[in-house]
Amino acid sequence: MKVAIIMGSISDKKISDDIVSIFEKFGVEYEIEVISAHRTPKRAFEFSASAKENGFGVIISIAGKAAHLGGVLAANTTLPVIGVPVKSSTLDGLDALLSTVQMPSGVPVATVAIDGGKNAALLAIQILSLSDENLVGKLNLYKQELEDDVKKMNENL
Amino acid sequence: MKVAIIMGSISDKKISDDIVSIFEKFGVEYEIEVISAHRTPKRAFEFSASAKENGFGVIISIAGKAAHLGGVLAANTTLPVIGVPVKSSTLDGLDALLSTVQMPSGVPVATVAIDGGKNAALLAIQILSLSDENLVGKLNLYKQELEDDVKKMNENL
Amino acid sequence: MKVAIIMGSISDKKISDDIVSIFEKFGVEYEIEVISAHRTPKRAFEFSASAKENGFGVIISIAGKAAHLGGVLAANTTLPVIGVPVKSSTLDGLDALLSTVQMPSGVPVATVAIDGGKNAALLAIQILSLSDENLVGKLNLYKQELEDDVKKMNENL
Amino acid sequence: MKVAIIMGSISDKKISDDIVSIFEKFGVEYEIEVISAHRTPKRAFEFSASAKENGFGVIISIAGKAAHLGGVLAANTTLPVIGVPVKSSTLDGLDALLSTVQMPSGVPVATVAIDGGKNAALLAIQILSLSDENLVGKLNLYKQELEDDVKKMNENL
Amino acid sequence: MKVAIIMGSISDKKISDDIVSIFEKFGVEYEIEVISAHRTPKRAFEFSASAKENGFGVIISIAGKAAHLGGVLAANTTLPVIGVPVKSSTLDGLDALLSTVQMPSGVPVATVAIDGGKNAALLAIQILSLSDENLVGKLNLYKQELEDDVKKMNENL
Amino acid sequence: MKVAIIMGSISDKKISDDIVSIFEKFGVEYEIEVISAHRTPKRAFEFSASAKENGFGVIISIAGKAAHLGGVLAANTTLPVIGVPVKSSTLDGLDALLSTVQMPSGVPVATVAIDGGKNAALLAIQILSLSDENLVGKLNLYKQELEDDVKKMNENL
Amino acid sequence: MKVAIIMGSISDKKISDDIVSIFEKFGVEYEIEVISAHRTPKRAFEFSASAKENGFGVIISIAGKAAHLGGVLAANTTLPVIGVPVKSSTLDGLDALLSTVQMPSGVPVATVAIDGGKNAALLAIQILSLSDENLVGKLNLYKQELEDDVKKMNENL
Amino acid sequence: MKVAIIMGSISDKKISDDIVSIFEKFGVEYEIEVISAHRTPKRAFEFSASAKENGFGVIISIAGKAAHLGGVLAANTTLPVIGVPVKSSTLDGLDALLSTVQMPSGVPVATVAIDGGKNAALLAIQILSLSDENLVGKLNLYKQELEDDVKKMNENL
Repeated sequence: MKVAIIMGSISDKKISDDIVSIFEKFGVEYEIEVISAHRTPKRAFEFSASAKENGFGVIISIAGKAAHLGGVLAANTTLPVIGVPVKSSTLDGLDALLSTVQMPSGVPVATVAIDGGKNAALLAIQILSLSDENLVGKLNLYKQELEDDVKKMNENL
Repeated sequence: MKVAIIMGSISDKKISDDIVSIFEKFGVEYEIEVISAHRTPKRAFEFSASAKENGFGVIISIAGKAAHLGGVLAANTTLPVIGVPVKSSTLDGLDALLSTVQMPSGVPVATVAIDGGKNAALLAIQILSLSDENLVGKLNLYKQELEDDVKKMNENL
Repeated sequence: MKVAIIMGSISDKKISDDIVSIFEKFGVEYEIEVISAHRTPKRAFEFSASAKENGFGVIISIAGKAAHLGGVLAANTTLPVIGVPVKSSTLDGLDALLSTVQMPSGVPVATVAIDGGKNAALLAIQILSLSDENLVGKLNLYKQELEDDVKKMNENL
Repeated sequence: MKVAIIMGSISDKKISDDIVSIFEKFGVEYEIEVISAHRTPKRAFEFSASAKENGFGVIISIAGKAAHLGGVLAANTTLPVIGVPVKSSTLDGLDALLSTVQMPSGVPVATVAIDGGKNAALLAIQILSLSDENLVGKLNLYKQELEDDVKKMNENL
Repeated sequence: MKVAIIMGSISDKKISDDIVSIFEKFGVEYEIEVISAHRTPKRAFEFSASAKENGFGVIISIAGKAAHLGGVLAANTTLPVIGVPVKSSTLDGLDALLSTVQMPSGVPVATVAIDGGKNAALLAIQILSLSDENLVGKLNLYKQELEDDVKKMNENL
Repeated sequence: MKVAIIMGSISDKKISDDIVSIFEKFGVEYEIEVISAHRTPKRAFEFSASAKENGFGVIISIAGKAAHLGGVLAANTTLPVIGVPVKSSTLDGLDALLSTVQMPSGVPVATVAIDGGKNAALLAIQILSLSDENLVGKLNLYKQELEDDVKKMNENL
Repeated sequence: MKVAIIMGSISDKKISDDIVSIFEKFGVEYEIEVISAHRTPKRAFEFSASAKENGFGVIISIAGKAAHLGGVLAANTTLPVIGVPVKSSTLDGLDALLSTVQMPSGVPVATVAIDGGKNAALLAIQILSLSDENLVGKLNLYKQELEDDVKKMNENL
Repeated sequence: MKVAIIMGSISDKKISDDIVSIFEKFGVEYEIEVISAHRTPKRAFEFSASAKENGFGVIISIAGKAAHLGGVLAANTTLPVIGVPVKSSTLDGLDALLSTVQMPSGVPVATVAIDGGKNAALLAIQILSLSDENLVGKLNLYKQELEDDVKKMNENL
């Protein structure tokens, strides 16, 4: 199963780069596309409605301000949708956070931290790992790396 | 031209009642429908895409929490869309306000106060009045009523 | 019908420039004036009270901090007033947003995103388009351009 | 010199009652009037423009939501204007607080706590006491009372 | 694979009941336990460290105030952890939301809306459905029910 | 009567400079002192307790973060105390605003905008003008200047 | 060493009752007094300046709104001061939290959760336990009780 | 008794440097370690569980975003834990503040200002001074220095 990385605008590319860096490291297959809930609503509809049959297992949505993209994608699929709220020029990302996480009952968006691209990728991998023992091993290694990073920090203190 | 009153859930009916009371007073034609951006996304798409040819001039969207409805409707029409953010059980309506007003460049939603149904209706009438001198007269009368209400408040002080 | 672009201070000029760029593109007639709700209250009163008879169809108000301008203009006219809250040196525009959008019942201000000059212009055009089929065509073209922009983003990904 | 107590709506009467109770206690002359910045803008303009010549020394403004009243009154007078932000049905008074206190440079509104009617009255009395030694005595007595209240609280602990 | 429903206190039971109602409807196996990140930290550590080998596929964490539970569980497992921030007596759940969603890079918690028990359950089911086609069918039926609910709302309007 | 400009730290000097510029323009007598509510509490106590007999008519307090200075000065005097909340390195001045304005009943602090030094000075002058007709004239001239500034902005548009 | 429980007003008694219940359970000596930073500033000054020589080891300060009490007490003593921000009628305690915790460099106030009386008491006991091994034992027992409470919650699930 | 300075990441080093500067000045023994609640949870558990027997008297925890570190350390020790919330790239430290201070009943974290490293150190010293009269003397000297700093500010005004 592939992961779809959907961003609302090319200006969100720094977030998708973070995601890609994790997927490359873990060997996870992905596709990237700019889809706007407001400027290309039809494409948003069609993409999510057909995502499952097109081989996607998880959709990651990246959007700022009134971030409707996650909800719009989630409305048309049974796949888990992960939302990354993006900080833009005002309100420090609080608008995107609330627009992404406060979904009404029935249609969840799995929200990670503001600008939290890496965690969105890791969450997608955790989800895929439920049916891919190989990824479990890599996640355990990654956890070990995180621990080793802290060890190195202490050596350099 | 009719006004469409679209609410995300029947639980928003108290807001649509406020709107209807103004439209009845001004003799403005309207239609009401529950359409959910997340539960009936296709209907949301189709409604707004055909709203103009179906005789609507303005769309009022009522939604709480991660209020995507206004943006989703605005994405598919050139009609002005008015958004009423609704206060729900947490965050005092701030989530709905930011989700409605912070639309990205290109697709505006004309946002009124949290739970501001009456003002949404009045804004719709102001818009329609640009091509309906009869409504201008009624708006001027309404402004006079507002002034008279204050006068009465002072008499009863 | 012309659109009035009223800004509270010359420091808001970057927002009015965004508005002008849209109006020039759409061929919409406009006038710009600095009017302060607090420093030139009489002019604010007179401008809005006579705006309709002076040929305006929509008023756009641009103001920051305790942004009273939109409300003060709306108090004296039946024309639709669009408010653009401006981010200033503290509070990230939240003060201007709440001061603009939370209007009491009876006097709406159609609020767009913080620093959302372009959307204010587009909303004004949507309103004017209800009685100007030519603008409808241009709005549809603009929507197509937004879609094409996304397409180009994907080509350059 | 009298104090003007101006409230935006009769619904703010509980706040003006708090103010009156202090003025009665201190023997300060006052007048109360409902004036709305948005529903009776002309009256707001005229009242404040003539407040000084009509014998007022201080104006207290009481308003909720997008509380423009204090700023509108202050725009037309050189008298000190005290603003009381009022908590309404959403946002806990934060909207009224920011709309009242964040005045742009040149036109101050002396803001007290949300729903802080008593403190508005005391601030008015402090201001008047600068030219009324009698009020200084009463303020000192009042300070003593506040202290005695605490003493009694301790006795009843 | 079972789902673990972990709540920080018995006072969060109304949220876990919402979750259970969804799991019962979908026939998803689950276990419930009260585990506190602060009062039973060792149990939190052990539970999450052994959750995978104990047959769990997803962990749902329910906690209010400084909601550390989700992060503490996620620290010791490669399973996806879903966090439900709970509204408590102050701050309307904003504290729990930020404590849950703003996880540092490396350890995600999939956050849903404040008090969003049902959506946590649905997200868990979406995740499990990636390797259980039977659940996909049930999710599609559920989406149909959501749509039918809206239809009924319109009939009763 | 002189005005006291009290700042909590020398780092607030840019705010006191704004105040001084207004006082110099209006010919108002003032004294400046750094007094910290927390580092020189005794001096704060003594200063405010004797401010009236030392010839002060108004006290302006400038402080950031948990801005207790205004309240501490107001506790020991019947003079009006004006508080200027200062934006510091975090929270954009919201902490100082709430710490200054939300005074409990009995002890008001007249709060102006975050970093609003000029308005604090103007408010002090408005207060002093109640017993100094000369200042009224200067305030009217200042209002005229504000208006002329706007005129010039329009000429340069 | 005794603990001082200082509250800004008798209305904060429910919080001091929570504190007392913990101190009674642990056998910690305490004294309670209502002292207001604004209404009895001299008493606040004197109390804290002499607290150490009067046998106190820790001071707990309870206050709402612009909660200056903790800072005022901390200014005059080298004893650790614990601040409990209290939720009052508006802003959900955020004003008291920021007024208590955001102390400038040099004068700390150890802040606990909004309305967190019990935790203030426990923090005081942890501090006293550094020189009282008996209290360490009781704290360990208390931790065991917290754990047992969770166990009972699970039995009753 | 030593003080432990625990930071969640090496990126918090500027805060720990502030702490160290105070400890060096006061001659307080300390140890520094990077421990992450999420990346090295076992180390966090073991460190705090054995901190008392390892000679620590106070633990200072430094963490940003969803700052769980203070709570996780406090869960496993009876020592007082001081939490320093750190401002990171979004939300101005509000997330870390609420995650640190809003601890549930039973497990306090003594929270100081956002980025308030110096105050964390001073609070630790105040706590240690209860059983170390030498530190009381140094704290009194420090208070004198703070006062002298203000004096120098006034000389340079």
